[in-house]
Amino acid sequence: MPDIGYLNGQFSPLDEIKISPDDRGFLFGDGVYEVIRAYHGVPAFWEEHFARLVRSAREVQLPFFIEQTDFQHLLLSGLQLSGYQEAKIYIQVTRGVAPREHVFPPKGEATVFLSFRKMVALPMEVSQGGVSVITLPDIRWGRCDIKSLNLLPNVLAKQKAQEAKAFEAIFVRDGWVGEGATSNVLMVKDGGIFTPERTHFVLAGVTQHQVAAMGQAKGHDVQFRPVPISDLFQSDEVFLVGTTIEVLPVIQINGQPIRDGKPGPITTILQQQFTAYISGLSLL
Amino acid sequence: MPDIGYLNGQFSPLDEIKISPDDRGFLFGDGVYEVIRAYHGVPAFWEEHFARLVRSAREVQLPFFIEQTDFQHLLLSGLQLSGYQEAKIYIQVTRGVAPREHVFPPKGEATVFLSFRKMVALPMEVSQGGVSVITLPDIRWGRCDIKSLNLLPNVLAKQKAQEAKAFEAIFVRDGWVGEGATSNVLMVKDGGIFTPERTHFVLAGVTQHQVAAMGQAKGHDVQFRPVPISDLFQSDEVFLVGTTIEVLPVIQINGQPIRDGKPGPITTILQQQFTAYISGLSLL
Repeated sequence: MPDIGYLNGQFSPLDEIKISPDDRGFLFGDGVYEVIRAYHGVPAFWEEHFARLVRSAREVQLPFFIEQTDFQHLLLSGLQLSGYQEAKIYIQVTRGVAPREHVFPPKGEATVFLSFRKMVALPMEVSQGGVSVITLPDIRWGRCDIKSLNLLPNVLAKQKAQEAKAFEAIFVRDGWVGEGATSNVLMVKDGGIFTPERTHFVLAGVTQHQVAAMGQAKGHDVQFRPVPISDLFQSDEVFLVGTTIEVLPVIQINGQPIRDGKPGPITTILQQQFTAYISGLSLL
Repeated sequence: MPDIGYLNGQFSPLDEIKISPDDRGFLFGDGVYEVIRAYHGVPAFWEEHFARLVRSAREVQLPFFIEQTDFQHLLLSGLQLSGYQEAKIYIQVTRGVAPREHVFPPKGEATVFLSFRKMVALPMEVSQGGVSVITLPDIRWGRCDIKSLNLLPNVLAKQKAQEAKAFEAIFVRDGWVGEGATSNVLMVKDGGIFTPERTHFVLAGVTQHQVAAMGQAKGHDVQFRPVPISDLFQSDEVFLVGTTIEVLPVIQINGQPIRDGKPGPITTILQQQFTAYISGLSLL
């Protein structure tokens, strides 16, 4: 089968799906989304992604009502249709179709769109060798805790990173580390693991949460706390986490190596542990 | 004819136009737009809107290349097909269609979408009687000078205004007046007209520019300068300007009347002058 799409109740080949130009996702970025990784046919952490999707929708008063079991059923049906064992599932919910007016449309029927694509993982030399990142001023809006479609600043930041031959851009606001354009950031210092506290400027990461719990279970002191940019440069280790990148060592920030410029030991252990965890995921 | 749409070289009835869900406008709000008002078949201030569209595109490195004469031709062709004399023309340009990745797609062909709809002007009692507004903290991103599709905060603000039975929400950042969710704000004090200076937090309004020039031509001291929120409440007159609302008196802010709670004399004169100006527009 080709890539699979889903729109408002109907599965089809992805390239057959079409959207109205009056969809508020297209006109206003008026919607929210999630990305879920499926491993050997099993959508990982799907309950957490579902909960965050529901929260994002609620925070922008988007009329999105679906039972958790129906959501799971959607994911599994799409996976099955696609035939992909390793897949990237994208879920987008918008405030529906209506002639362009900013105020919420009276009818209020959400657009629900999913795509199921084959996952192409990072090359081994990247995931194990680590990546460079840059820092950029965080000029995004004040509700980055909502996973909304207003992603233009993220797009521009990610492009800047690529042009600087870096993998990711880390947003810094008033001297405080926020998150990457498409990831969360964690640091290791003296055996402790820390990551920016969850405010309106940071998305609560699903992988971030999992990895923090794994670190804690291994006896590390794990803290969600404000992180000044200076801490980033003085860390023993820095790494990124995200649904598709999993655990990814950072070896350089703005051209400056972290310690010896190699992935750190705690990062590597967490990376292996995460891989072991997801390889053991099952539908039961 | 029904409402007319245009997509990448092709005019059709608007409801026949369909967009790919992989359009970056839908996935990321990765695009820019303009709204142009046509009066008796004449697109008003279209050169200014075109210049701003080109600037917005350039600021986000969007590959949008169209000659000014071709743009004008597009507007006139769509108007003619629609048959509308009084029309609202919407123009949206996105970074095109590509599998979802934040970085710019290598191909780089923009999506160009236009819609031509019949203009339904504000009821006379609103445009002449004036409107109420509310103020809201400006939590938008740091590049509101770009007319981008990342409009979720504007949507939420406009909805809040409606729920407060107000027409518009005025964004205030650190005590400074910015702009409305869908308009610019001007004030009159002691015969002078002032409006927030043009920074990265404010869109350079086409109607704002026209009305400022009209005020200046009538001998008023017109200033683009930082406006503290306190000035708003101490003004003699306050009004909004925008492509579809033209010149609109504000009679109440956060439930508090401006002076006697009636449209001010300078606002009314500018409104009449603007109406006279656009009624004289011709294609030559």
